[in-house]
Amino acid sequence: MKITAVDPFYLRMPNITTAADGTQDTLLVRVRTDIGLEGWGECDASPLVSLTVYCCPMSHGNIINIRTSLIGETLDSLDDVLRLSEKVLRNGLDIQQIEHAYSGAEIALWDVIGQKSEKPVYRLLAELSNTSEMAHPKLPYASVLFGDTPAATYQIAVGLRERGYRAAKFGWGPMGKFGETNDIALVQAAREGMGTDAQIMIDAGVVWGTDHETAYQRAEAFAQFSPTWLEEPLAPDAIDAYGSLTKKNPSVPIAAGEGSNTYRMAEDIIVHGGIQFVQIDAGRIGGIMPSFQVRQLAEEHGTQYVNHTFKSHLSLAAALHVFATNPDFNLLEYPAAGSELSQRLVTEPFPVESDGMVRVKELPGLGVKVNTEAIRPYLSPVQIEVGTEKVFEQPPLA
Amino acid sequence: MKITAVDPFYLRMPNITTAADGTQDTLLVRVRTDIGLEGWGECDASPLVSLTVYCCPMSHGNIINIRTSLIGETLDSLDDVLRLSEKVLRNGLDIQQIEHAYSGAEIALWDVIGQKSEKPVYRLLAELSNTSEMAHPKLPYASVLFGDTPAATYQIAVGLRERGYRAAKFGWGPMGKFGETNDIALVQAAREGMGTDAQIMIDAGVVWGTDHETAYQRAEAFAQFSPTWLEEPLAPDAIDAYGSLTKKNPSVPIAAGEGSNTYRMAEDIIVHGGIQFVQIDAGRIGGIMPSFQVRQLAEEHGTQYVNHTFKSHLSLAAALHVFATNPDFNLLEYPAAGSELSQRLVTEPFPVESDGMVRVKELPGLGVKVNTEAIRPYLSPVQIEVGTEKVFEQPPLA
Repeated sequence: MKITAVDPFYLRMPNITTAADGTQDTLLVRVRTDIGLEGWGECDASPLVSLTVYCCPMSHGNIINIRTSLIGETLDSLDDVLRLSEKVLRNGLDIQQIEHAYSGAEIALWDVIGQKSEKPVYRLLAELSNTSEMAHPKLPYASVLFGDTPAATYQIAVGLRERGYRAAKFGWGPMGKFGETNDIALVQAAREGMGTDAQIMIDAGVVWGTDHETAYQRAEAFAQFSPTWLEEPLAPDAIDAYGSLTKKNPSVPIAAGEGSNTYRMAEDIIVHGGIQFVQIDAGRIGGIMPSFQVRQLAEEHGTQYVNHTFKSHLSLAAALHVFATNPDFNLLEYPAAGSELSQRLVTEPFPVESDGMVRVKELPGLGVKVNTEAIRPYLSPVQIEVGTEKVFEQPPLA
Repeated sequence: MKITAVDPFYLRMPNITTAADGTQDTLLVRVRTDIGLEGWGECDASPLVSLTVYCCPMSHGNIINIRTSLIGETLDSLDDVLRLSEKVLRNGLDIQQIEHAYSGAEIALWDVIGQKSEKPVYRLLAELSNTSEMAHPKLPYASVLFGDTPAATYQIAVGLRERGYRAAKFGWGPMGKFGETNDIALVQAAREGMGTDAQIMIDAGVVWGTDHETAYQRAEAFAQFSPTWLEEPLAPDAIDAYGSLTKKNPSVPIAAGEGSNTYRMAEDIIVHGGIQFVQIDAGRIGGIMPSFQVRQLAEEHGTQYVNHTFKSHLSLAAALHVFATNPDFNLLEYPAAGSELSQRLVTEPFPVESDGMVRVKELPGLGVKVNTEAIRPYLSPVQIEVGTEKVFEQPPLA
């Protein structure tokens, strides 16, 4: 078959705030073919910036947009997906945003090939890598923010426990802002609210920058509450500081990596940062294949792979296929309470099943369908003119 | 003073081709203040993609555009430049293209502060780092492509020698495409055409990907013609392959780094790639300050810093200030024959002086002025609408 259209869609809620909520808007990418098959993918990135990577005028041989690279191309097999990914990245070598933008199209290409071969994406990955084809359930953890105070945090944690969560991550807000005593009280409140049987994770939201000494002290101080990890205590690029921190073997494992815009960034923070959990967003790093390559690297290094997902369940589907077959990588960041847009985006979201677990769908491709009718109210049509040239006009959703 | 406007301008030649010529288009950024001072900077990036980083709607607290971060801010000193850079990068943490885009504004902020303090940018850098304030001349090297054949390459080299060039870099084209014998013949032709006294550099244009064995063999085979360096034999992200190559101590020094979109990427390829020359584009890595930090790192590591510049002499000015005061870093990539647009862009380009050298200008700020009348014919006005919102309307050039 041939690729006939590659269309980005900018969707957003009516009011966008500075809140740490990545579900307020999104960029979807639809790939259409001449035999009627279509696939979808979702980017975690600035929708407008990434959209222009699909349509920007050519600057020279290293700045050619994604549509130009893909439309008219043959797409019959997984080999074509890999070949086209190489082409897109080579043609976009001098576009910094290329991985963020291409993630959506790459995921859509896997969706198409999965449907064509009538296999879930995770099986295609297993075949490609000659590894187990058995999928394993994941324990979902809710991602929430700390309350402004320890008391408010306790109430949030109690609420999560009552909703059945056996794991929850508490992020930023006051963390790191009001001194060690308050930081410890916040973690204590999360633990007490969730109960001793639950897993709790602490997300410091890069608050200590390059100060690995303070990050180490906090990890030691938090250890009494047995958090599963301390996430992003340092800036994403502070690889040497991560290395200094992890060399001291803090009593709480260190997690990071959501800011990996390229495979090399993930490799860098695993190898030189020495982290214990690597968190990868398939909607940022360039899609399913580079995420899977990080998973393989994590397996080699004894690092635990975890998804980073703060968009809709379309992104969750892509994330799950990447590491469904590794039973040791058993934690899943699970978007539980995003915007209306993100909750309506797919027709059948992933449920938390009666055993408290989430499972990949045994359906062709990604296994989820975009609900174009439900999301139509959120579409923000984009028009871009450069000189007299209309470089982007919004295609219809359906 | 206060920042009153931050305006990007997309300029381009009438016909853009896939040729390896980065001067076919450009993105300029003008920063205006309430006391009438204005500064300019140039980005080496996709103009449209980078332009949207100045105006994209907010997605959440980590995706806030550059104009929002800068307009209305106080700009009185170098401390303000550094503070505002930190703000822009923090607000744009989840915009992959942020460094490419911000480069233009960052350079413009230095231009403004240099004019206000009546000092060239290189002196401000020297004061900031407590290092020598003496500028040194640079030996310009012409950047050209190999001819399709050794004979054509010889003619190109003879032409450069006749124009007075004492150094020239020959790039890609047939290099690496037709086997070792042809590769060697190309380098031999460049050497014979330039003469034994000249410096020649070889740019392989990432042709060997991750194949460090072949890169090593070519370096050894080229050594008889004494090239100053072998540039980008491997893919920009192939840091481990660079490390494997440089650990073998090839007889020709290895150069790379133009693809450094962040300070960390440059640090990574210096420390783990083990290269001998690091090539930094101030119009990509986020501007003058991160480039200067790479220069300092290069000084610590015994690596030679060289600019990467393939735009107008506005970019050349920014590049020169970064390393003007280090006499050992004595080579300058010099855009000699770009498009009409790039040649007309500044009122007084940097001449090659009678001693064959190029010198930074002893004028406030960058020391060059944008010729707005001359470039007006190349302006491609941009208009962007998202939903009913006009997120970008083209401001006038003057």
